[in-house]
Amino acid sequence: MNQQQIRSLLTRVAAGETSVDEAILSLRSAPFEELGFAKIDHHRGLRQGVAEVVFGAGKTPAQIEAIVTAMRQEGESCILITRLSREAADALAPRLAGFTYHETGRIGIVGAIPAPDAHGKIVIATGGTSDLYVAEEAALTAEALGNEVVRLYDVGVSGLHRLLSHLDEIMSARVIVAIAGMEGALASVLGGLADCPVIAVPTSVGYGASFGGVAALLSMLNSCASGVSVVNIDNGFGAGYQASLINHLTENKA
Amino acid sequence: MNQQQIRSLLTRVAAGETSVDEAILSLRSAPFEELGFAKIDHHRGLRQGVAEVVFGAGKTPAQIEAIVTAMRQEGESCILITRLSREAADALAPRLAGFTYHETGRIGIVGAIPAPDAHGKIVIATGGTSDLYVAEEAALTAEALGNEVVRLYDVGVSGLHRLLSHLDEIMSARVIVAIAGMEGALASVLGGLADCPVIAVPTSVGYGASFGGVAALLSMLNSCASGVSVVNIDNGFGAGYQASLINHLTENKA
Amino acid sequence: MNQQQIRSLLTRVAAGETSVDEAILSLRSAPFEELGFAKIDHHRGLRQGVAEVVFGAGKTPAQIEAIVTAMRQEGESCILITRLSREAADALAPRLAGFTYHETGRIGIVGAIPAPDAHGKIVIATGGTSDLYVAEEAALTAEALGNEVVRLYDVGVSGLHRLLSHLDEIMSARVIVAIAGMEGALASVLGGLADCPVIAVPTSVGYGASFGGVAALLSMLNSCASGVSVVNIDNGFGAGYQASLINHLTENKA
Amino acid sequence: MNQQQIRSLLTRVAAGETSVDEAILSLRSAPFEELGFAKIDHHRGLRQGVAEVVFGAGKTPAQIEAIVTAMRQEGESCILITRLSREAADALAPRLAGFTYHETGRIGIVGAIPAPDAHGKIVIATGGTSDLYVAEEAALTAEALGNEVVRLYDVGVSGLHRLLSHLDEIMSARVIVAIAGMEGALASVLGGLADCPVIAVPTSVGYGASFGGVAALLSMLNSCASGVSVVNIDNGFGAGYQASLINHLTENKA
Amino acid sequence: MNQQQIRSLLTRVAAGETSVDEAILSLRSAPFEELGFAKIDHHRGLRQGVAEVVFGAGKTPAQIEAIVTAMRQEGESCILITRLSREAADALAPRLAGFTYHETGRIGIVGAIPAPDAHGKIVIATGGTSDLYVAEEAALTAEALGNEVVRLYDVGVSGLHRLLSHLDEIMSARVIVAIAGMEGALASVLGGLADCPVIAVPTSVGYGASFGGVAALLSMLNSCASGVSVVNIDNGFGAGYQASLINHLTENKA
Amino acid sequence: MNQQQIRSLLTRVAAGETSVDEAILSLRSAPFEELGFAKIDHHRGLRQGVAEVVFGAGKTPAQIEAIVTAMRQEGESCILITRLSREAADALAPRLAGFTYHETGRIGIVGAIPAPDAHGKIVIATGGTSDLYVAEEAALTAEALGNEVVRLYDVGVSGLHRLLSHLDEIMSARVIVAIAGMEGALASVLGGLADCPVIAVPTSVGYGASFGGVAALLSMLNSCASGVSVVNIDNGFGAGYQASLINHLTENKA
Amino acid sequence: MNQQQIRSLLTRVAAGETSVDEAILSLRSAPFEELGFAKIDHHRGLRQGVAEVVFGAGKTPAQIEAIVTAMRQEGESCILITRLSREAADALAPRLAGFTYHETGRIGIVGAIPAPDAHGKIVIATGGTSDLYVAEEAALTAEALGNEVVRLYDVGVSGLHRLLSHLDEIMSARVIVAIAGMEGALASVLGGLADCPVIAVPTSVGYGASFGGVAALLSMLNSCASGVSVVNIDNGFGAGYQASLINHLTENKA
Amino acid sequence: MNQQQIRSLLTRVAAGETSVDEAILSLRSAPFEELGFAKIDHHRGLRQGVAEVVFGAGKTPAQIEAIVTAMRQEGESCILITRLSREAADALAPRLAGFTYHETGRIGIVGAIPAPDAHGKIVIATGGTSDLYVAEEAALTAEALGNEVVRLYDVGVSGLHRLLSHLDEIMSARVIVAIAGMEGALASVLGGLADCPVIAVPTSVGYGASFGGVAALLSMLNSCASGVSVVNIDNGFGAGYQASLINHLTENKA
Repeated sequence: MNQQQIRSLLTRVAAGETSVDEAILSLRSAPFEELGFAKIDHHRGLRQGVAEVVFGAGKTPAQIEAIVTAMRQEGESCILITRLSREAADALAPRLAGFTYHETGRIGIVGAIPAPDAHGKIVIATGGTSDLYVAEEAALTAEALGNEVVRLYDVGVSGLHRLLSHLDEIMSARVIVAIAGMEGALASVLGGLADCPVIAVPTSVGYGASFGGVAALLSMLNSCASGVSVVNIDNGFGAGYQASLINHLTENKA
Repeated sequence: MNQQQIRSLLTRVAAGETSVDEAILSLRSAPFEELGFAKIDHHRGLRQGVAEVVFGAGKTPAQIEAIVTAMRQEGESCILITRLSREAADALAPRLAGFTYHETGRIGIVGAIPAPDAHGKIVIATGGTSDLYVAEEAALTAEALGNEVVRLYDVGVSGLHRLLSHLDEIMSARVIVAIAGMEGALASVLGGLADCPVIAVPTSVGYGASFGGVAALLSMLNSCASGVSVVNIDNGFGAGYQASLINHLTENKA
Repeated sequence: MNQQQIRSLLTRVAAGETSVDEAILSLRSAPFEELGFAKIDHHRGLRQGVAEVVFGAGKTPAQIEAIVTAMRQEGESCILITRLSREAADALAPRLAGFTYHETGRIGIVGAIPAPDAHGKIVIATGGTSDLYVAEEAALTAEALGNEVVRLYDVGVSGLHRLLSHLDEIMSARVIVAIAGMEGALASVLGGLADCPVIAVPTSVGYGASFGGVAALLSMLNSCASGVSVVNIDNGFGAGYQASLINHLTENKA
Repeated sequence: MNQQQIRSLLTRVAAGETSVDEAILSLRSAPFEELGFAKIDHHRGLRQGVAEVVFGAGKTPAQIEAIVTAMRQEGESCILITRLSREAADALAPRLAGFTYHETGRIGIVGAIPAPDAHGKIVIATGGTSDLYVAEEAALTAEALGNEVVRLYDVGVSGLHRLLSHLDEIMSARVIVAIAGMEGALASVLGGLADCPVIAVPTSVGYGASFGGVAALLSMLNSCASGVSVVNIDNGFGAGYQASLINHLTENKA
Repeated sequence: MNQQQIRSLLTRVAAGETSVDEAILSLRSAPFEELGFAKIDHHRGLRQGVAEVVFGAGKTPAQIEAIVTAMRQEGESCILITRLSREAADALAPRLAGFTYHETGRIGIVGAIPAPDAHGKIVIATGGTSDLYVAEEAALTAEALGNEVVRLYDVGVSGLHRLLSHLDEIMSARVIVAIAGMEGALASVLGGLADCPVIAVPTSVGYGASFGGVAALLSMLNSCASGVSVVNIDNGFGAGYQASLINHLTENKA
Repeated sequence: MNQQQIRSLLTRVAAGETSVDEAILSLRSAPFEELGFAKIDHHRGLRQGVAEVVFGAGKTPAQIEAIVTAMRQEGESCILITRLSREAADALAPRLAGFTYHETGRIGIVGAIPAPDAHGKIVIATGGTSDLYVAEEAALTAEALGNEVVRLYDVGVSGLHRLLSHLDEIMSARVIVAIAGMEGALASVLGGLADCPVIAVPTSVGYGASFGGVAALLSMLNSCASGVSVVNIDNGFGAGYQASLINHLTENKA
Repeated sequence: MNQQQIRSLLTRVAAGETSVDEAILSLRSAPFEELGFAKIDHHRGLRQGVAEVVFGAGKTPAQIEAIVTAMRQEGESCILITRLSREAADALAPRLAGFTYHETGRIGIVGAIPAPDAHGKIVIATGGTSDLYVAEEAALTAEALGNEVVRLYDVGVSGLHRLLSHLDEIMSARVIVAIAGMEGALASVLGGLADCPVIAVPTSVGYGASFGGVAALLSMLNSCASGVSVVNIDNGFGAGYQASLINHLTENKA
Repeated sequence: MNQQQIRSLLTRVAAGETSVDEAILSLRSAPFEELGFAKIDHHRGLRQGVAEVVFGAGKTPAQIEAIVTAMRQEGESCILITRLSREAADALAPRLAGFTYHETGRIGIVGAIPAPDAHGKIVIATGGTSDLYVAEEAALTAEALGNEVVRLYDVGVSGLHRLLSHLDEIMSARVIVAIAGMEGALASVLGGLADCPVIAVPTSVGYGASFGGVAALLSMLNSCASGVSVVNIDNGFGAGYQASLINHLTENKA
């Protein structure tokens, strides 16, 4: 029940067309989101009208197809499907017009990636080449949400010269996504060099005492550089999403 | 060695006033930060000219006094001393002009907190009253860095009505810091309600299987709400600092 | 040796038909459960005459068939087989009359689910759609044990409006089973809203720092809401079983 | 805003005494709990009019005194203060009329414990004498909430005869709280013997590989007995509270 | 109710002095241990008439005095009090005749340690001198239970010559207790050298990644030597007790 | 170089047949085990002449065949091959005379299991039927080493009557192997009932918070019953081996 | 930009052939490693001109072929490919001249292993035969880098005689690599015997509470022998590489 | 029994002055270390005649005094006492001639630190000023063992310029000790820059998810730089000792 509906209801009460008891009942049973207090289905959608997201893991191609079709009927022009396997993508390709699949990032996109509409650039940096699957999930998410993305891959801290040769890109970023497995030191070094927010993503790359990304996660949480926050292991989508939120902040909010 | 100095050096080489060998030696031994590539001492300082930070834990009052005095001589008008015990504060008070101590947040401030100079408001929310020590560390940090802060304390998810009665503040935030111990669910609920970045801070409040904040940390890392990132347990300073970075982003960066 | 047998033995002693030594020997070697002190085979069966349960994991179809056949000969009209794979179900179907298989909950049922005979309703709520496999295990268990079940699926805390639109069902439950993976905050929110017992079930849904359900488990154990208790990760059966115990409590017990 | 207030508001709208816009504003800004949808401050209070609870840890005697005084002015006749240290109790005693302190359970009670008003008995069993501090927290909580409590202390599984000599009490319980540290096996044995719900409480009693209660916690979560659920380590209050909820269930709810 | 009492009861039934109903009631309510099926209070006492044990941790001197006095009245000639602090010992000394305190092992003994009555020797070996507090707990326990003990202290594996110079003692042991912190390798080396059972005790000695004895515990559990089993961290009493059980085994049991 | 060889060497030195330098060289290069100080290849073999053991995991059938053939040539009449897969067993069967495979315990035996030559009985008890694979590994190991084994399977603590109906076997054991997954409480209950050594084996049976046997392992390490020690998760061989060592102890050792 | 290039640039500035502005631009954009301050691509290559290393895991045969071809064109005569699967090796064999595959160590080598050019011997010791896959990775790495390697396999501490029979090799090593799973005690024993640096490698060999190598890792980190350091679980390459660094140290460095 | 003694014994046998049986007895009972196979008490002492070490933790001043006095009588000119508290140092000072105490490193030194006698320099670098206590333990250990030490303190990776301004020292080290808490990235960055062995020491500095040094430990174990190995958390002594071993390696060993 949105404000127009509440207004309508109250108007009917004022006009004597609806009894007080009926109005109480309506108010009580109204879905909360329609009261204007909260976002509609925010936690899985994206509100800027740029793109909509479907979490693909654990859904059948048929389920995904149905969801995407419904979204399109509501006018979505760009729909992101994350954690989409090659097999599911192959099944979806012939059934969804405008579908493309990005295997490294395990992301399917239905429709066209929009032109960037934010104010700055998002730098996405990785420690090694094996972190690319997470980096591409972050990069494609950010691009689908209307951001310009600069990819700095394989700039791990054990070869500082590679990282330092990209200082210009790093210093000009509006927000940085630092992605690394193993010891995860990239976030600290970038946090020390840059003066913008750094979102760190530990990856499950590694073996032995990397414990599926825990070593990198702990390293990033303990970063001695200020301005660094962390998302879940391998959560490229979450980092790209938050980076986009930050990059789209305008000066006159609130 | 900054660009002016490099220019000067090269000009002297061009004029024959400096030999090539001398120039090579000068370039090689120049401190890296002076080449203009990196920030000066960024990881412990704050570059916007608003405030400087001293990490107080493990330092003697005498050491802190020396550092603060040096900073003041460089012109700092507001200096933050974090993780400062009551005992150390009592020792510093008579020796530092303009010193005030905020015991809940364990923060000392030398000089005046500046007027806010950022574009929006930072909402700092806690699950319970026992999280206040972290919340005040975040809030004072953000204020000292020039932000307007809205405090929403004790709005944990087991009493939703308290949280929901503050929807207006939540919806108008430019960035939210969500602080909670125990099960840490506050970050997810706020992340689902708001459309701005949420920085989650787990606290070590709790007992038994809270494991000194690990339960809240894991909960926050696994948030099913998008737009949430996490800092270290009890790291109110880090959250306040990153929130300030985000809040100060301008539209025309880069 | 039950009380009748003890009485009979003592009567024979009183009548001189059995010597004291023979009686001592009989008493000592009597299986404990026959003394009337304890339940017969309680930990795997259900005593209310409603349904019997077989834990299917690790048993061959032939073993399950033998157990079910024996139970039926003892008069069981509804037998639940939990953790039953699709393959085992396919093997059992032609060999057990009255067998139906519920794949989502991995449960086979032999016989008819009885009509509810308890006093209230059990609400089974999940945070997401991927928790359904655990939810259906709980729901079918509760139904087979004679309970009316209300399913509230996909009402996770990052979309509060969905949860709040079901307040009526939540407030009218006699016991709630709250099932969630990831950050597991659903239990706390439900525990704060409802005034009935809440049994929380963490699920192994998630990735990275969810650690196979540990994050949700810890979150639930640390719930700041009163009235919440927890069962093992993915233990839908245990939650459904305890919920049924609670729902069947009568007012005049003991 | 409760239903009477909503009715009043709508009546004023119907009478033309309040404009539609004013009514919209009032509805939107009304604290959620006043809409009648949710409990008032449920997560720290108790709704049955029997007792109110204050979590004493981390609060000063002055804060506790203020809270208790306010509660009393609202008519509470029995107020429980949990996790209350001996020092705080000594400070409170002269300032709160009707205050008694139970040191083992670290609980202060203001006012008289009410007569039991529930249908059955709650059995509270412990594995050893060192678990008493948790057991008394549970027992006093349950008693203050209007329950009859049967204490079975020091009936650990390594001395089965002691446990078995109390079979009558165990079999006649409406709900059992099983409290144990070390290996936590008591919950499984009780769950196998009784046919009522069992709430297990691991305690931090032990040393070495007990890891502050983790061993008992895991043991209880993995109980092979049905009907067992678990609360946080040392959470006697939570167990007593949920036991009371279960014990107060009436047959005609919902 | 022991067998004599059962015989007496049955005799009275046979004589008509007790009714069958009364006899049933008596049998049912008889404490289980009195049926002759199980040991009396076995889990804290020792049945061989050699010594009785009181777990001193968490008991006040007054409680310990009361327990010891009661035991003595039942004829115990040697009573062991484990985990007894120096302070408690000082309080007990003037109140218990025949009391001696062994500070290293934190053990008080009331009465005389009996002469060994078992068939072989128990070798108690430690990796370092800092493991002595556990070793003495084990050694005094074993001695109080009637064993001859050979102490081999400070024979850690990083100085193999010290260990190998005691090969004769090692090879002639009937059971070995191997006590070590840090890396806990002593158990494996002894298990490889000796052909008797080895009971390993990890100690909490160490720092950093020793995690309070967990490193040694895991090392011992993973021993590649056969014939090694493990008790809890620092559980010298448990090792000494089991070693005594093994050492007292006779050839004609059962 | 055994004592006879040393004697022979020294005799040759005394007779002038060997030079002092040659003798020094021989002594220094002599394999240590031949000095009579240590056991020959003890950690993988068994010294009582009863059986020899081959750890089958990670070895090819050809490697196993070669090892077994060599052992037979040294006169071994009974050889145990542990952790042997069905596939490897099928490959070995036609190539090794006298080979039999026990699939539940994953053990192959070459030759005849010897008649028991120890003094008592080893009771091997399991909590559930799913622990049988470990129990049979323990039982066959013990039998191959010359012990009489009593199998008490599926006597878990959540159905005490089943355990208590076997009190006679339990009380007459010389050593007990207690095998359980899930909460592992069986070891404590048996340790409380029996007065002989109990070797506990946690199994990896379970799901969720059983963590592959860790819950049972911790439970067993924390057993409040005296006389219990623990081996590695699923280590049936180790338990059977140590039980045999204990069962073969004679009264006149050392 | 190396020093020659800097010299050339400055010479051109001095000669007026390059403007100061152009020189500033060149200096600023020069890759950092070319300034002579740091190594070129050190973290994946080896600088002594002996061998180059490619980390094979996660790379396709085509990618590996391309990298190796490029390296060869730069003149590498010996290229190591680590973590190379049998399948990838089979694909590479026909496409790379001079390719050999060592399956145990999962290493491919292109070109000839060079003659040793270091001063001492590297002893590589393992606790068991199942650690060979890590040992061969270490040994082949060390050999490809120009070291003489002595292999001491299967000398675990539970059979000390085997280890002690190799004292000569141990005492004459310049650096030792100690490789073991299970309890990892080998490092401590070797550290105690030898007077050279010991690099310990825990392996993931084992089951149950070995936790994929964590038990051995902790054991090695807690070694009570001085002179022992540790690398990641299964990191044979890292150990072989550091051993080679140590073995190639010359006396007149720096 | 050293080789001279063996030669003497055998000569006596050859001369008929000692019987064969007596010689057997002597050989068998000879302490192993005297056979010349192994070092004397190596694991706590240092063999190069430079310094001797006493582990001070857990020893009383009187014990330390006795040990040091005995060492001096054996001619030691420099004795290191590690983990020595200020209190113990104060007690020792008046009782030991030539005693000095270094409080930061918690090290006492008796006698004069010798002049360096190794070939290169040991660089000891720390991430922050709070790691100094570990760094000084390492530095003093290395100096007492005859090494030249270069201290690079507070060069953490979040301020790269500070680290890079010391490239000359880093590149000229013979071995580097990298000490850091928090995220421990220093080891990776140094391992990438330098071409000598790097020994990493995690410190317990930090809070929250640093888990007493575990985050740094894992980070260092997972270093993506080659040539890095790790010692226990806070183990400055172990790092300094191994660094000295490496630094003293000569070219003609073995």
